[in-house]
Formats: sequence, C-alpha cells, structure tokens
Amino acid sequence: MNITSGGEIAEFKTLKVITEGAVLFVEIAAPPMNLLGPELIRDLVSLIQRAEADNSVQVLVFKSADPDYFISHVDVTSIKENREAAAKLNGDPSIGQMLRHLSASRLVSIAQIEGRVRGVGSEFILACDMCFAARESAIFGQFEPSFGVIPGAGGAQHLARLMGRGRALEVMLSAHDYNADLAERYGWINRALPAAELGEFVKSLAHRIARFPAAGHATVKERVNAICLPSSDDIRRDSDLFLEGTRTNQFKQLTQIAMENGFQTRAAEMNLAGLVYHIQGKRTSEV
Amino acid sequence: MNITSGGEIAEFKTLKVITEGAVLFVEIAAPPMNLLGPELIRDLVSLIQRAEADNSVQVLVFKSADPDYFISHVDVTSIKENREAAAKLNGDPSIGQMLRHLSASRLVSIAQIEGRVRGVGSEFILACDMCFAARESAIFGQFEPSFGVIPGAGGAQHLARLMGRGRALEVMLSAHDYNADLAERYGWINRALPAAELGEFVKSLAHRIARFPAAGHATVKERVNAICLPSSDDIRRDSDLFLEGTRTNQFKQLTQIAMENGFQTRAAEMNLAGLVYHIQGKRTSEV
Amino acid sequence: MNITSGGEIAEFKTLKVITEGAVLFVEIAAPPMNLLGPELIRDLVSLIQRAEADNSVQVLVFKSADPDYFISHVDVTSIKENREAAAKLNGDPSIGQMLRHLSASRLVSIAQIEGRVRGVGSEFILACDMCFAARESAIFGQFEPSFGVIPGAGGAQHLARLMGRGRALEVMLSAHDYNADLAERYGWINRALPAAELGEFVKSLAHRIARFPAAGHATVKERVNAICLPSSDDIRRDSDLFLEGTRTNQFKQLTQIAMENGFQTRAAEMNLAGLVYHIQGKRTSEV
Repeated sequence: MNITSGGEIAEFKTLKVITEGAVLFVEIAAPPMNLLGPELIRDLVSLIQRAEADNSVQVLVFKSADPDYFISHVDVTSIKENREAAAKLNGDPSIGQMLRHLSASRLVSIAQIEGRVRGVGSEFILACDMCFAARESAIFGQFEPSFGVIPGAGGAQHLARLMGRGRALEVMLSAHDYNADLAERYGWINRALPAAELGEFVKSLAHRIARFPAAGHATVKERVNAICLPSSDDIRRDSDLFLEGTRTNQFKQLTQIAMENGFQTRAAEMNLAGLVYHIQGKRTSEV
Repeated sequence: MNITSGGEIAEFKTLKVITEGAVLFVEIAAPPMNLLGPELIRDLVSLIQRAEADNSVQVLVFKSADPDYFISHVDVTSIKENREAAAKLNGDPSIGQMLRHLSASRLVSIAQIEGRVRGVGSEFILACDMCFAARESAIFGQFEPSFGVIPGAGGAQHLARLMGRGRALEVMLSAHDYNADLAERYGWINRALPAAELGEFVKSLAHRIARFPAAGHATVKERVNAICLPSSDDIRRDSDLFLEGTRTNQFKQLTQIAMENGFQTRAAEMNLAGLVYHIQGKRTSEV
Repeated sequence: MNITSGGEIAEFKTLKVITEGAVLFVEIAAPPMNLLGPELIRDLVSLIQRAEADNSVQVLVFKSADPDYFISHVDVTSIKENREAAAKLNGDPSIGQMLRHLSASRLVSIAQIEGRVRGVGSEFILACDMCFAARESAIFGQFEPSFGVIPGAGGAQHLARLMGRGRALEVMLSAHDYNADLAERYGWINRALPAAELGEFVKSLAHRIARFPAAGHATVKERVNAICLPSSDDIRRDSDLFLEGTRTNQFKQLTQIAMENGFQTRAAEMNLAGLVYHIQGKRTSEV
C-alpha cells in the first residue's frame, strides 16, 4: 500500500480505500447489507496491518457505501470462519481481540456513521477512537441478548464503561433500536450531527488530527486506554461466554426461526427490533 | 406467590403487587409518605425472595401509589429495626447490602418514578437495573450530607460511578433537589419522560425484556455488574461510616431540630431542600 | 489570613481574595492573560495552605478578573520554576500533584468559569470539586497533543474518567476549542449557565454548602475520591511523560514557532485552536 501516492487502493474486496495525505478513508462495501463475515474481516485485518506498517498513515476514517447499513451485525452462518479470519491479526481467534487491537493501535480511528450499526457493528464503532453519526439515519442496537447471548466482541464492556450501569443494561436487555440523538445522550457515540454536515466535519477533523505530531497521539491513546479500554481478559471472557451461548439449543432454535423470518436480509432488518421481538413467540418455552 | 395465575397478590402490607405474565408490577404504598421503615423493608425482602424463587418471574417494575413520594427517605426513627429487617435477605444488616442483592439478582428491576426520591429512595432506584422518571413530577435528592453524614446505602458509590466526580460531589454536598431533566443530564436515571407516557413506556419495555431468554439477562447483568456495581466491601464501608455519623451529637441534634421543623412529615418535605438549609441556623456551632 | 473578619485579603500578588463567612471568593488576576507561572502557583499554594489551616474556611470559589481568560494555560517559558513553586505544597514537584492536593483537601472548591480555560487551566478546573461555566463566554481546550505531548497535570486522567474513551480522545487529539454547552454535554463541567446568572448561582451554592456540617463534606469527598480521583502514581506518570515530551526537539521547535506566531499573547490566543493548527505547517517533517 503506497499511500503517499494518493488516490484509490483497489486491492480489497469489501473495502474501498482512498488516501489523502496521512488519512485513509475506508468505505465498507460488502453488499447486500455489510454483514461482518470472513471476507470483510480478512480485509479489515489486512488494512490494519498495512496501515500500521506504514508510518505515513496516521488516521483511519471508516464509513459505509450503503446508506442504510454501516455494519449490520456478524454473519451468524460463519462464526467459526470469522474467528479464524480475525486470528490473523494477533493470533487470538476472536473479533473482540481484533477490534481491541484497533483500539490499542497507534493509528487514530474515526467512525462516520450512517445507517444501521447493530451487534458487532456497534462493537466495531465502540472500538474506534471516535464516532460521529448522522442524526437522520444512524440506528444503533446491541441486540444479542434477544437471542439469549451476551455481545461477543466487547459490546458489554464498552457500553458499561461509557453509559453506566442502568443505560448499558437497558440497551442490551431491551435489544431495542436507538437513534443517533439518544445514542449521543447515552454516550454511545461522541456526537450526532446533521447528515448534510457529517462528511465535511469528519474529513476536517481527520485532517486536523493527522497534522499534529504522531508522538502525542500514541502517548495520549496509551494513557486513555489504560483507564478506559477493556482488558484482553475481559474481551476474551465475553467472547467465550458468547460462544458458549451460541452452542445452546435455545440460540440455535432462535437463530433458525430468525432466519426463516428474514434475519440477515436487507428488507427485514430495516426493523430488526421488531423482528427479534416477533420471533420469541415462535420458540418453544422449554429451550 | 403463584404468579402464573395472574392478578393481584394481597399478602403485603406496604406493596400492591400485580402479575402480568413474567412481569410483577409492584406499587409502593406506605402512607403517609413512603418512608422506608421496617415494614416496607420486610415486604421488599419477602418480595425479592419469593420472586427469585419463582422461575416464571423475570422482571420487577417498582412504582408508587403516592404521586408526590416514590420513596421519601429512610425513617430515621427506626435505623436499628431497619437494619434487622434488611438482614433477613442475605444476613448482612444493612439496607445497602439488601439493595445490592437486588442489583446482583437474575431479576431485571425497573423503577418507574413519580414524585420524590430522596436519600435511600435515590439509593433504591440506583440499585434497580433501570430508572425512568416523570419529567413533571419526579424530584431527586441525596441530602444526607446536610446532616453531616454520608449516604448509608450505596448512594455515593453509584452516583460517583454514574455522574463522575464533579456532579456526584455537587449533588451530595449541595443536598439540593434535582428535577428529572437534570437527573437525566447527570446520568442519575436512564431517561425523563412525559408523565402521560411513562406508564405505557415502562410497561411495554418490561414485557419486551420479559419476552427474551432469561439466560441472556443473567449473563449480561453479571458482566455489567462486574464493571459497574459497587463491591460489597464498598457498600459495607459506606454503611459503617453512615452509622458512625448517626451516633454523633451533631447528627442527633440536627435530626431533632429537623423533626421539630417538619422532617418526616408529608407537607414539610415537599420542599426538603429548603428545610435542611433552614435547620442549620438552629444548630449550635460547637457540635 | 484572618478570614473571620471578612473583607478583602490583600497579601497575594495574583489573587484577590474576599471572605464571606466560611466562603473564600478567589479572583485570579495575573495580567495580561492569566498564564499559570511561578507567581500564580506560589499564590495558589499559599492560599490553599492557609485556608486548610483555618477551620473557619469551608469553601473556595475560583473566578477570574479577566473576562476572556480564566487560566489560559501554563507559561511554557518557566516549566522548571513552575515545578519548584508547586513542590512547596506537598513536596512533589509537579503542578498535577499540587492540583491533586486541592482535590483531596477537606475544602470544597468551585470553579466559576468565564473566558478561556485551556491546558493546565482545564486541569485546574477538573481538579476543583465542581465547575460551572458561562454559556456565552467559556471556552475549553486540552490542546497539549498539538505540541506532541500529553497534558502534564492530570488532564488525560480526569477527561478519560469523566467523558469516556471516545470523547476524551477527541478532545485531546483534536486540540480543539469547545464551548460551554458542548463541555457540559461531554461531562467536562457540571453545567453551563447563562453568564448573567452564573455569579449568583455559584455564590448561593457556595454559601449553601458552607452552611452544612464540615464532617459530611470530608467523608463524602473521601469516598468519592476513592472512586474517581486519579491516583498519585497516575498523576506522576503523566507529569513525567509530559516532561519527557518537552525535552524533544519537536516540542522545542513547535514551541518556538508558536511563540513567533503569538503563542502566550492575549490577542493571538483568542483563537488558539487556529494557531496550533497553523504552526504545524512550519515545522520540519523530520523532528
């Protein structure tokens, strides 16, 4: 990746990367709905590795090519492959550890959010260093508990630290959708901005940060992470609990019912909060 | 308690309990002003024990039968009896440990707040998993420091974690009343809502949560509590410091003056922030 | 300092101190722009020592004689002298430890903020027990990373705990100016108030707090600090990292360029966020 030459880097399958000076603008484009599956994970791992190896890169901006979905959630049909792909970054086979690597990196990462950010999508933006969202279109959810499992990639860790006990419990136990204004009030994101201003705001901020000395960024991140970043042990424990949960009959049954009702399809997930509620009536009470 | 049959459970003296599926709606009715005394504590202990023993119960909603007082505060004339009653839950003779038990329970607890929530009332709602308050009527106070003592049942612990240092100090050192909007901005509660919408909102949320698998609730609560819930040691230490404070001449004198000025009466406590300020002029400077 | 007599205490060079009962109103007056240099530090150390030794003092209110600058930032031309002056308070030669001493004091400190509060100015108000700011005029910045260094006196520690990871990183890595409303939303301060109401609000709050028993204040502060106050080790580590950073050629070059462009002058720092961005173009890329 020769980012000093500027222009587009065309080697990723699910990412469109544009360089502008020390800033990489990374557009997530994994149709039909930006599910986080093995291909997108492989591209993210590769991107992070190459950007970290290139001292001319200072800031990563993540956005989506899909106005309705930033990252919808994990592809539940490929949990094993996802973990194998994530392990390529630092040996630990969990998406949570991959995301924690991004948080701990010297690179500054900014999420520019339009559309839906649920499950591991929420965990992805929580792992970024900053998040700004379009007031009109961004929608947030950490809905894993509606399938009887804990978020697997650090969501509970981050939300508890950012929002405090009551709001973190509400968000996860309700499995509800939250708009950008409420997400801002709860501390889920830095700020909600009008969609028309969001791109320019983030671009300007990214270039501003990239202009300052890299040494300061690294030290500030290290000291802030020492206070706020969940430990590897906590991330690993949540990942293990999630995996355990996915092996229960209850999870398998709920997932199957969900798939039959449109889960992991673009149209049905426009209202995922409704879908996950609806499917509960179809599970047997005993599982 | 046979909650599967639905309808009202009439065995409590200070609680009116209605079951709807896996949700218990618990109305606090301890006239004249919902002081937390031995009788209400005994009923709460009994309710929690029986609900925990009944796997068909998943969610508790607490509200008040009195539009002006949710829980006014602890009955200071029965501190010893309160502790004995609280000890029935898990052996530890402190209201703080009783409340911590509720926080750590597999049960999901929601406070639906209208009226005044001060002192141990605030500590009660902070121990619930979520709090929603009526914008027009809810009033919050953690006023114990106006009597020279720390909150005795975890208030300082929760407020410091939810609001941060400056706001927690302001709330306690000022012993002021806070309305629901400010309480929301400070993170004291999840959200302030119009009174006309509050009941329906909480009811809908409670039933939504109750519909999701219990296994997810328990795991999420366990992981969030590991980060946010004050330790038993911290709760016990605050309880001890509170008790020590109540044994000083200063506390005794202030309490006596307060009682002579309407403390623990319905009318005078409508403006408790004024009352606790007023009584300071009557204490001797030496105590 | 005989505060019981009331009236003005005229012995400080950079502070104007007025006593009203148990409250000291301290006006910072170090023209031309309230830089924190050795003289102001010596006065602050002396004030804190004498107020702590006088049991009739309970509350300190800090405000500024300059409507545009509360405390602008540290005087970078006197870093060594600053540390020697700060060491007089408790032996540790760092402004961060001096400020931590104030946070841990039995005295209740309130910052009444008009004008700019940047760098160590922000760290000063974060060390106070509460902060209230004029909505129209207060401006906040923690801009040290634009010089390649971490905030040296606890800023990163406090901001990370108050705002959470994303907002703290944004504030420091962007080195931007923040107005009072955004500072409130981010938890940097307790509240933004209309300038016309600020003085009366703080005065009333200070006298209210001072009227309550001192024993309660001390215990509440001790318990809240145990949760929220950065440890001495963390403050010292940040101070050391800052010092290391100031010894690099990059910092020295940036400081020199900044001084040539108006840094530490009243007019140029009205828009410091612009100045620190502008100077980056003049540094050599190699340092």
